[in-house]
Amino acid sequence: MSLPSLRLKANADRRLRAGHLWVYSNEVDVSATPLTGFQAGDQAVLEAAGGKPLGIVGLSPNNLICARLLSRDLKHALDKSLLVHRIKVALSLREQLFEAPCYRLVYGDSDFLPGLVVDRFFDILVVQLASPTMERHRDEVLAALVQVLKPAGVLWKNDSSARDAEGLPRYVETAFGEVPEWVPLEENGVKFEAPVLQGQKTGWFYDHRMNRARLAPYVQGKRVLDLFSYIGGWGVQAAAFGASEVMCVDASTFALDGVERNAALNGVAERMAMVEGDVFEAIRELKAAEERFDVVVCDPPAFIKRKKDLKNGEAAYRRLNEQAMRLLNKDGILVSASCSMHLPEDDLQNILLSSARHLDRNVQLLERGAQGPDHPVHPAIPETRYIKSLTCRVLPS
Amino acid sequence: MSLPSLRLKANADRRLRAGHLWVYSNEVDVSATPLTGFQAGDQAVLEAAGGKPLGIVGLSPNNLICARLLSRDLKHALDKSLLVHRIKVALSLREQLFEAPCYRLVYGDSDFLPGLVVDRFFDILVVQLASPTMERHRDEVLAALVQVLKPAGVLWKNDSSARDAEGLPRYVETAFGEVPEWVPLEENGVKFEAPVLQGQKTGWFYDHRMNRARLAPYVQGKRVLDLFSYIGGWGVQAAAFGASEVMCVDASTFALDGVERNAALNGVAERMAMVEGDVFEAIRELKAAEERFDVVVCDPPAFIKRKKDLKNGEAAYRRLNEQAMRLLNKDGILVSASCSMHLPEDDLQNILLSSARHLDRNVQLLERGAQGPDHPVHPAIPETRYIKSLTCRVLPS
Repeated sequence: MSLPSLRLKANADRRLRAGHLWVYSNEVDVSATPLTGFQAGDQAVLEAAGGKPLGIVGLSPNNLICARLLSRDLKHALDKSLLVHRIKVALSLREQLFEAPCYRLVYGDSDFLPGLVVDRFFDILVVQLASPTMERHRDEVLAALVQVLKPAGVLWKNDSSARDAEGLPRYVETAFGEVPEWVPLEENGVKFEAPVLQGQKTGWFYDHRMNRARLAPYVQGKRVLDLFSYIGGWGVQAAAFGASEVMCVDASTFALDGVERNAALNGVAERMAMVEGDVFEAIRELKAAEERFDVVVCDPPAFIKRKKDLKNGEAAYRRLNEQAMRLLNKDGILVSASCSMHLPEDDLQNILLSSARHLDRNVQLLERGAQGPDHPVHPAIPETRYIKSLTCRVLPS
Repeated sequence: MSLPSLRLKANADRRLRAGHLWVYSNEVDVSATPLTGFQAGDQAVLEAAGGKPLGIVGLSPNNLICARLLSRDLKHALDKSLLVHRIKVALSLREQLFEAPCYRLVYGDSDFLPGLVVDRFFDILVVQLASPTMERHRDEVLAALVQVLKPAGVLWKNDSSARDAEGLPRYVETAFGEVPEWVPLEENGVKFEAPVLQGQKTGWFYDHRMNRARLAPYVQGKRVLDLFSYIGGWGVQAAAFGASEVMCVDASTFALDGVERNAALNGVAERMAMVEGDVFEAIRELKAAEERFDVVVCDPPAFIKRKKDLKNGEAAYRRLNEQAMRLLNKDGILVSASCSMHLPEDDLQNILLSSARHLDRNVQLLERGAQGPDHPVHPAIPETRYIKSLTCRVLPS
């Protein structure tokens, strides 16, 4: 197969040589290789300004990030064989790290498969394709996954907003075998079922696995509040780890039905309560009722989706964390999470500090959690790092 | 007891109100309250420029950091009663988190006891006093520790260079009961003995506990190299977690004797080898002998002790990590730690990235470890955060 060339401007190769995988459209020498000459999903040989080949890219010619490096080896364009190899490399890490086959199997750029995300739930795979190159190769993606993992079912969960920007249609459909509405998984030894068809993203957030595992010593025998509980990832694990009582708050009936289902699965339903409603309002009501908790987990949806939301988003994190602190018993523990890629960890730490000082409290930062190792960070691509989880103890001043 | 005042200049109270505990000498209104009027170790009521009291400080009048906040409550100067209270608050956290009573019990500013560090080894306590205020109150410190913990022995391990700057003499002496040369401890279920009299710092580095715990899934059945092993904190745990073979490298015979002792304690001596010598040289020899490892742990002493060492220190970290990567098997794991407070985590990450690229390798950052929760970070005092441990997988390009 002979691929066309995509030529970079002078010095635009530096970032890529230093490890990055993305090409921005303003870095392309369009007089030599016009982007208009490519279809979305095409592959090309990326060349430095002098003509030296850097590797093979997949193209999104209408996008600001107009190409992503698929391989530094010119012999390996994206095909089933490369997919099988990369999936095996990704799998070998996960198999070494986790007892149950439940994890993010492929995490896009970080697993050198830009545009591909695969979450594994025992023998069910939920796949997100986010680039036109992966979309065009979806048959090979499926064939590679089936060959390596022999799944019972594979779901295309291609309904993310990221696809709109790539001009790709949104759809959710079974790609292979059978995919039930609720799919079993295990995390930190606790059983769950995730709504892979109707739930958020792939139906489950494996990214907080390690942070949830670290809850164990903090919650034993304690009263726990789980804000923005979704289907109980934190709350049900807290109960399974020995919390005396767990209250889950979420605005969605569907999510709270999931909490109930997952609580029952682990035989902890009698120690759990569900509150449906706006979280800020629920906090006000709990405060008014003088309810107090030993541990509050606060894992909201991303308040900062785009960089321009930073200021408003920070204010929302501040309001939320300060209100959450007010519900703590003396020397209580706040687990404050954020999945906003644009919110630096230090900003979240400062929010916790200033919230505590505003309430005339002191705060000790005990744990600094990140996404688990099935979501590796690509050290050249800051966008691959997004999960923060700060555990702190809030003391009287 | 009526305490003298220490008056701040205008606006110098802001940082303290925001949570910080330190007063710099140039922030003091010396015309109102001359620092020359205080003895090292005195206490005073800290006042804002307008006279409003902020709390009680302990003084080091000859030091750049001339005072540290001991209490925001004017009713509580440093005395045995405050010490007992603060030690109990610190203890309650550790008792909740750790099964064995082996941990940093008091971590200075972060436990609101500036100048006091206490490491607990079952019923032996090793204490470091780093401020003239704590030194002056050492009888009360001892009485409080004896009252709360009923130890068999307490050691003053007052031999750190930090004491020179405070004009305090260095000494190591038994303060209470009996303190043996080697003291038992347990970390992550693995047994050790630490040389509390002759070893570095307090004899043991509890700060890496969680990072060592996270070694477990990476080392099972693997060949592991522990560089700068000291007495085997990482290496012996790797063997206890199931590594097939562990090689410990250290320049100190004393340290390697400790490895041997600790390996024997856990019945893993036959899977461990010790290499005495300069680590950089040992790496060269291992490379020349074509030795390869699945996991390399690289936890050097602080290469950056003062800010002015930053450039040379970074170069040393770069050289070390790049050399360590060359000893890895394909898809091997590098655990790269740093205890240099002046080296930001992002710098270490960049060092790993550029080292890998220099060797034409790719790197996935899997874990981002920090000091354990018995070394809480004071979120207003960046100096209380110092441990970094980055776990990465090094892949062919």
